[in-house]
Formats: sequence, structure tokens, C-alpha cells
Amino acid sequence: MAKKASGTKLRVMMLGGLNEIGKNLAVLEYGEDMIIIDCGLGFPDEDMLGVDLVIPDISYLEKNVDKIRGILLTHGHEDHIGALPYVLRTINPPIYGTRLTLGILENKLAEARLPHKVQLNTVSPGDTVKLGVFSCEFIHVNHSIADACAIAITTPMGVVLHTGDFKIDVSPIDGGIMDLTRIGEYGRKGVLLLMCESTNVGRPGFTPSERKVGASLDLIFMNNPDKRVIIATFSSNVHRVQQILNYSAKYGRKVAVTGRSMLNVVGAATELGYMNVPDKCLIDISEIGKYPPNKVTIITTGSQGEPMSALYRMAFSDHNQVELNSGDLVVLSSHAIPGNEKLVGKIINEMYRRGVNVYHEEAEVHVSGHACAEEIKMVHALVKPKFFMPIHGEYSHLMQHKELAEYMGMDADRIFICDIGQVLELDKNHCKKNGTVPAGRVLVDGYGVGDVGNIVLRDRRHLAQDGLIAVVATIDTDTKTILSGPDIISRGFVYVRESEELMEEVRKIARDSLNDTIEAGVGEWTQMKQNIKDDLSKYLYSKTKRKPMILPVIMNV
Amino acid sequence: MAKKASGTKLRVMMLGGLNEIGKNLAVLEYGEDMIIIDCGLGFPDEDMLGVDLVIPDISYLEKNVDKIRGILLTHGHEDHIGALPYVLRTINPPIYGTRLTLGILENKLAEARLPHKVQLNTVSPGDTVKLGVFSCEFIHVNHSIADACAIAITTPMGVVLHTGDFKIDVSPIDGGIMDLTRIGEYGRKGVLLLMCESTNVGRPGFTPSERKVGASLDLIFMNNPDKRVIIATFSSNVHRVQQILNYSAKYGRKVAVTGRSMLNVVGAATELGYMNVPDKCLIDISEIGKYPPNKVTIITTGSQGEPMSALYRMAFSDHNQVELNSGDLVVLSSHAIPGNEKLVGKIINEMYRRGVNVYHEEAEVHVSGHACAEEIKMVHALVKPKFFMPIHGEYSHLMQHKELAEYMGMDADRIFICDIGQVLELDKNHCKKNGTVPAGRVLVDGYGVGDVGNIVLRDRRHLAQDGLIAVVATIDTDTKTILSGPDIISRGFVYVRESEELMEEVRKIARDSLNDTIEAGVGEWTQMKQNIKDDLSKYLYSKTKRKPMILPVIMNV
Repeated sequence: MAKKASGTKLRVMMLGGLNEIGKNLAVLEYGEDMIIIDCGLGFPDEDMLGVDLVIPDISYLEKNVDKIRGILLTHGHEDHIGALPYVLRTINPPIYGTRLTLGILENKLAEARLPHKVQLNTVSPGDTVKLGVFSCEFIHVNHSIADACAIAITTPMGVVLHTGDFKIDVSPIDGGIMDLTRIGEYGRKGVLLLMCESTNVGRPGFTPSERKVGASLDLIFMNNPDKRVIIATFSSNVHRVQQILNYSAKYGRKVAVTGRSMLNVVGAATELGYMNVPDKCLIDISEIGKYPPNKVTIITTGSQGEPMSALYRMAFSDHNQVELNSGDLVVLSSHAIPGNEKLVGKIINEMYRRGVNVYHEEAEVHVSGHACAEEIKMVHALVKPKFFMPIHGEYSHLMQHKELAEYMGMDADRIFICDIGQVLELDKNHCKKNGTVPAGRVLVDGYGVGDVGNIVLRDRRHLAQDGLIAVVATIDTDTKTILSGPDIISRGFVYVRESEELMEEVRKIARDSLNDTIEAGVGEWTQMKQNIKDDLSKYLYSKTKRKPMILPVIMNV
Repeated sequence: MAKKASGTKLRVMMLGGLNEIGKNLAVLEYGEDMIIIDCGLGFPDEDMLGVDLVIPDISYLEKNVDKIRGILLTHGHEDHIGALPYVLRTINPPIYGTRLTLGILENKLAEARLPHKVQLNTVSPGDTVKLGVFSCEFIHVNHSIADACAIAITTPMGVVLHTGDFKIDVSPIDGGIMDLTRIGEYGRKGVLLLMCESTNVGRPGFTPSERKVGASLDLIFMNNPDKRVIIATFSSNVHRVQQILNYSAKYGRKVAVTGRSMLNVVGAATELGYMNVPDKCLIDISEIGKYPPNKVTIITTGSQGEPMSALYRMAFSDHNQVELNSGDLVVLSSHAIPGNEKLVGKIINEMYRRGVNVYHEEAEVHVSGHACAEEIKMVHALVKPKFFMPIHGEYSHLMQHKELAEYMGMDADRIFICDIGQVLELDKNHCKKNGTVPAGRVLVDGYGVGDVGNIVLRDRRHLAQDGLIAVVATIDTDTKTILSGPDIISRGFVYVRESEELMEEVRKIARDSLNDTIEAGVGEWTQMKQNIKDDLSKYLYSKTKRKPMILPVIMNV
């Protein structure tokens, strides 16, 4: 057993979940013990060309692998569990989460084919897990996925309450209202540090109940008895899917499911008992032809307009079983994630073009899974923490959350807006920022984790912008003559067939440049290449106002 | 004079302004006469890598250059006049527009340095221009730029009313309410075809008056007497800038202007009498240091978060004169154009990070320049056209506009949703779609117009996604041996330094592939190259799950 100096402090840091949307990873460290809360992935910005995913830099965890007592998961969304298949390659502590969360994770891990066994431990809301000096209680919250939890961690310095993602739903589809009672009990006993999510802190009021969506769906089914209804939503929103099943059954419709992730989730959720399929309601997508279209509901992926998603393929006549037409009504039961607006717009336009009836935001067919300002205030009022760290949001959200906490009566010097990797050091009465640990983003492209970085991205951006011109020549180093070439090869620059003159001029300039360099007796390849680059860049920019990447390839024999 | 057969019909077509946002171009044709309304540009979608602008395909106009009697401009926004510098290279009819519209156009044409003179003819609202068989009356409308007009064209078949972009502002900053009276008079006499914009048709109610923004600014100035105020808006919104000047003067603030287009517009608008600068209110940006920060207002470009814009540079410490800090209040007097949400978010986050107070959408500091549903209904009610063609909007907007027209009592078969290039043929009592003319988008990249097309874009997307691997070798065709290489050059693929093994394996596979092909006696270069591509693609995908562009370069000596 490692000794703990009396001066040991609690260290709290985020390796993801600050100043960004997309990946969440919190670390609590005390002496020789460390726990991790969530381990999510993010999606690349537009300028990260070709990158598939973004995961947190966990070099600090790898360095302290012996201290790690466990990973606690608040819920099963990608931005909270999605990095595990990558992270578990180098660390492998026991993992704790609720049944649905681990069910979703298991599917992911099966695809990742890790070489070692992963220790998954199922917990229920109300359970407490002892991990080193930490006692971690899972507390039921509402969110857009079932089985979501906040986690209260009792440490030698006091209680840290991590909300995870939450909303307060007074009339949820299942599981009851968020356990405000337990939150309040922790508050009454005293909470050292509140870590609270900030996504919707800028929106006033309360987030509507999930049940509101059901009421909208009820109206839509009632008013459209002659239409086939196709509903796109996030596959992980089990309660949303449940409501679609319920109201379809109410109106005597059969329900078919399409889209890989939707099929997975409906399967897993039914199996785990999180979904209750009305009797004989579910049919296979291949069977929809057996029923009148107005007696069919189709639940599909693609609410973000993702190319290759089932809805996209339906709209663009590329789906095996379903083609949209003027007898269809499509409900986008979702909100466009920032950056996806144009994709969603594209699919909506195509559906309108086919005469499809489209219901989107204005039809109140979606509610957020995140708490708005008044709900967040309620948590602050119940918890009354000594110190506060806003998490999970862009910088603007964290700042607005700070303002909210001050409005709720906290002193500004007890509120800590941290950067990724910044360490918050606490004892029973004090909290301060103290140093940083390595942190940042690791880019995943195909199988490669971390092998795409700034230089590679810079090159991709350059190539994307104006394409490439390769200048290829073979030179006899003895006789100092050009044996072959220079040939000019271009990709992504201009239509070559319509630019023959230009390309011929490029070839001439490259030859002159080569000859000049050879005559001047410059033997260095690097100089020769630089001269070609300079001469061609200048010429091409003056002629075309473009700056293609110029790649001189000089071979010598 | 060309004879007009008694069977001559009026032909109306859009070469831009349908099923898209960004470029507007309408054509009216009757016998030997043709007129053009607007000639705008659009901005590229994300998948048009490296493309600067998109303009309409005008090959139909070029083919009928002798018929074109004139180009009529509704107002001075880019999406209505921006393609002229390109289009006027091949056609050069007289141009008609109001003073501010032509003032802005003149600046553009000066930069474009066309080889010939352009005939610009200034008109005022109420003026009628005779162009062949067409009598064209300019009618005052409200919009987010001053001097905007609808155009009523009297043709041998009847009146065509083209609204341009408009809103109905009962309390505009200047110029009075849209001339509903004149619109109504045309309606009373009878309108054959209404061409009405559709941008905001999906929004219920009325667009608020521009004066609403003034009231919000008044409050902001009043409540923040201790702050420097920086306001970002569209430079072409002369009335918005006027209001910022007025309220700054009211609170004893000096106003400095920054950003190239903002300086241009304030200069031009003041000169042309469209702006009224309060006495001694305007100072040069270099003089702001002479005044207490809380007595300064700065008007800037960059409300869309554009990198390199003045606001962006202020936020990222790259502006010569202004650096933002916690004494600043920034007002984004604008709405993020679809696709710009992430850029705007980025700049807002950076400002929050600096402690800047940011006012955006929730502060009601912007109003749209486009009519909402009730205003559009009012135009339909006044005009009561025989036929109707919704224009200027995505397909979803055109369809919603059709629904609105039906709600207003029009028969569905009198409403025509056209595609770009589709010809609407009218006589006094009939209207039908009849054929198409060439139409589409022409991409502008640097100086090049139309030399970037699908193949170039496909290559750019490929390069952007996974980069490039060039395989270079020199072969002696007589002895059938590899004289040099194969060398492997990669760009935008992976960090080469960390992938030495991989690259060495690639080199080996390329050499084997070359040798195999030579041994097999395949003399064809294309086959040799294809083999290398196939072998390397297979290997790289299996190892990395990526598909870089593979560029085999075989030289022979």
C-alpha cells in the first residue's frame, strides 16, 4: 500500500469536455489512486480533412497506468464512451456503467477486436463502487438516452458531484424523474466540487419533456391517415423510438426499422428490456410491401442528412426497400448538429422535390436531452457546492455557466473555468489551479491513431485548395544532361485538355529552370527543386491566381 | 426590324435563383427581344474544394447576344450583381439600376478591368425603361440594402412583376415603406405573371422593422456606458450602419470603421448621399487611442466569422489597431448564413475567452431583409396574378411558397415551380412549361472561369481525404531494367517519419510490381501503372484503411 502524505491533495482534471463539443474525459487523482469518468470521441472540424474521429490525448493516463482504479461511464453516447476502443489498447482498467451503457459499449468493443479481455461491471442507479480511496455512487438522471447517470464521488477531501449529461424530465417515458432527492441529500451534507454540464446553459427556461414529442407524433398520425410515415431520429434515443412504436400501434400501423445503428439499438434495447414492442407491431423492412402504405411507419437513421444513411438513400433512390414519393410524410425528429445544417438542407430539398411532406423543427417533433438554464439553476440550488467547475461545452457556454453560478450566489473566485489538461487542486477548504498535464486531441484516420498531424493536414488542405503539379525529370549526373522529361502531371488543378497551352508553358519553364540550375553548377537536389518550385509558383499564380502544390521529382541515373 | 409572328409567345426562364441560395438571373424573351433581370454569384458548397465563386452558365445568352436589350438590376447585393464582372466579358448590353446599386457595381467593375466600356444607366424608383417590346418600371421596395426595387415589365402578353428581394418595412430608416400602392395598381390592372422571392416564406408572421435594431442598440449603449462597443455587420447594410452612427452620436461616442468592404461602402454611401454622418462623429481607426475606450464605437466586417476579416483579426490579436479585451462589448448584428455557424461559433468562443461581452441573436440586434409569410401573402393579395412562379429559394422554399399561393386562393395548375433553364411560355391566357435552355453552374477559381469541373473536384476531394503517394521510377526500355527508383513520395498521407516501415514496404511492393510487369513482358505503360496502383491500393487499405491517390510516374530513357 502506497503511503499518503498528510499533505496529499485531490487533483481534478479534464482531458476532454471543455471548450469543445464532442469528447468527454474527466480524471480524479488522490495519492496513488486515480479514476476516470467517461472516455468519449469527437468528430473532426472541417479543416481536419480526411480525419474520421478525434479522441483525447491520454499520455498522462498511460504514464500513470498503475494508479488507475477504474473508468466510470455516465451514459452510452459516443462523446462519452466512443474513445474506449482506442484507449483500451494501452490501458485496461475495470469499467463501470449501467446495463444499456455497457450493452452499447460491448457492441463497439466486439467490432474493435481488442487483443485482451475488457472487464465490464454493470451497476444500477443507487449503487456505490469503491475504487481505491474513492466511493462512487451512480445517480439516475434524464437524458436523450436511457440509463444515464450522474456520479457522486466521495473522496478524502469531500464529495465531487459530476452531473454527466442531464435534463430534468418530470414526465419521462421510463425511469422516473432525475433523482433530485439524492442530489439534494448530497447537497445538504455538503459538496466540495460540482462539475456540471453546460450545453444548453444559454437557453432560458426548461427543456420540454420527451413526452411532448409523443403528443406531436400523435397529432401527425391523426392528421395524416392517408400517408406512409417515415421518422428519422438518433438511434440511441430509445425512448423516442418507443414513442414511435406506441403511437404507430395506436393508429394500427406496422413499424419497420432501417439503418444499421437503428437495427442494432432496437435489437439491443429490446433484448435488455429497455423497449417494449407492442404486439405484432414490428415487421421486417422487406415486408412493407404487404401492407397498405398508410398502415406503415418506418423508423430510420439519417436525421443529420448523413450521406449513405438510410434516409439519404431513400431520398436519392438508392435504398433497396424504400423510395420516397408524394404519398410519404417524413418526420425529422432531431435537431441539426452545428455543422450539419447544409447536409440536412440538402436532403430536405430533395424530399420536397419528390413531393414528400416534411415535418421538422417547427412541428415540435424533437426535444433536447440537455438541461436549460432553469434546470441548471435547480441543480446549483440543490447542491450549493463549495467550488464549481463548468464542463461539457464550448468556451462561450462555460462562461455563461459561470455567470449563472454567480447569479445563484457563488463567489466568482470559487468558480474555475479550466482548459483541457489544467489541474484543479483541492483540499477540504481550498481549490486552485495548479499546473497542467499533457492533453489535447489525437486524430484517428482509418486504422491510424495519431499518425495524422499538422503537417499532413496542411498538405491535405493545400491539395484540396488547388491540387497538385508534379514535375518529373531524369538527369544524368555525369554528363549533366536531362535524359528524360521534364514531364508535367497535374491532379485537381485545371482541366488539362482545355489548358494545353498553359501546361506546355509550365513544361518549358520547368526545363529552363532545370537547365539554368545545371549550367550554374548547382549540384544540390534541394536547390534544384526549390528553383523549379519558385519559378512555377510565380508563373502559375500570375496566370491563374492559384497556388497548386508543386512536387518536383528529379531522378538521377 | 425582325417580324413577329402572330403566334409569338413570351418566354420566361431563370438561369439562377431557383433551388439554391446565391445567384439570381432571370430572362424574359419575346420575339427578337430579350432582357435580363439581375446577374448574381453564389458561394461554393463544401465539396467544391478550392472554388472561389459560382456563377450562372450564360451560354444561352451568349448565343442570343444580338437579342439582349438590357440588364435590369433590382439591388446591389452580390447574389444579384456579383457575376457581372465575369458575364460582361462576353456580353455587354446596357445596364439599368438605381444609384447605389450602380455605385457598388462600378467599384466591382473597376477591379475587374474589363477591356471594353460598360454602359451604366441610372434609374430612380418610378422610372420606366423601354427595352425593345418591354416597358420596365422600377418600384421601390424595402430590403437590407438601400435603393432596392421590384420591376414591373409590361410585355405584349401582359405584365410580369418581379419582386426582387424585399420586405415590407412600415418604419424604415430611409426611403419610406415599399411602394405597395404601385404594386396594387398593377394588381388592379391585371398581372400576367408574378415572380416572387421565397427566402423567408417558411417563417410565420412579419419581419420586424429595421428600426427595431436601433431600439436594441439604444438599450445596449445606455446599459454599457463603461464599455468600448464593437459592432460587426454586413457592409452593404447602409441603414444598419446609419443607425450605429446615430446612436453612437447620441451617447457621445466617436465612430471608427475597419474592414476593407466596410470602408468602401461607408465611403461610397456617404458620397452618394445615402448616409448622413453626425457632425464630427467619424474618426479614423488610428485615432481611437485618443479617446477613452467607452467613448468609442467601432464598426467592423466579420459578422460571419470569416477568417482574415477585421473582427477575426481583432479576436485573434492580428489586427493592427484593435485588440479585444474585457473592457469590450461586441455586437454581432447579423445572422449566421447557413454553413457559417461553426466559423461564427469559433470567433464567439475566442471572444469569451478574452472576457469580451458578446451580444448576438438573443439581443435582437439583427432583422432579416426578407419578407416573412404574412408580407408575402400581402403581395399575393395585392397582385392577384394570373400565373405565379416562386423564385429565389431552395426547393423547400419554392414548395412552401406554392402552398402559400394556394392558401391565397390560386389554383395549383397556375403555379409553376421551375428548374434552372426551364422555359415558361406564356400568352395572355395560358402558361406552360415548354423545353429548356442550357443552364447550370460555372465554377470560378482564381482567374479561371469554368476550368474547374467534376474531374478536378473529384481529384481535389480524393487528395483532401487521404493525400497522395507518388511512385517514381526510371526504366531503361532496351535492357528492361529499373535504372532508378522506385522512390516513394507522399504528401498528406501519414507522418513519414513515424511510418518508415510502412513506406519501406510500399517501396518494396512497387518494385515487385514493376519487376513482375517487366518480366511478364507487358510493355504498356498504362498497364504497368495500373498494376502499381492496384497492388499499392490493396496493401495500403489493408494496413491503414485509407485510400490515398496513387500517382505512378514511370520515366524511360
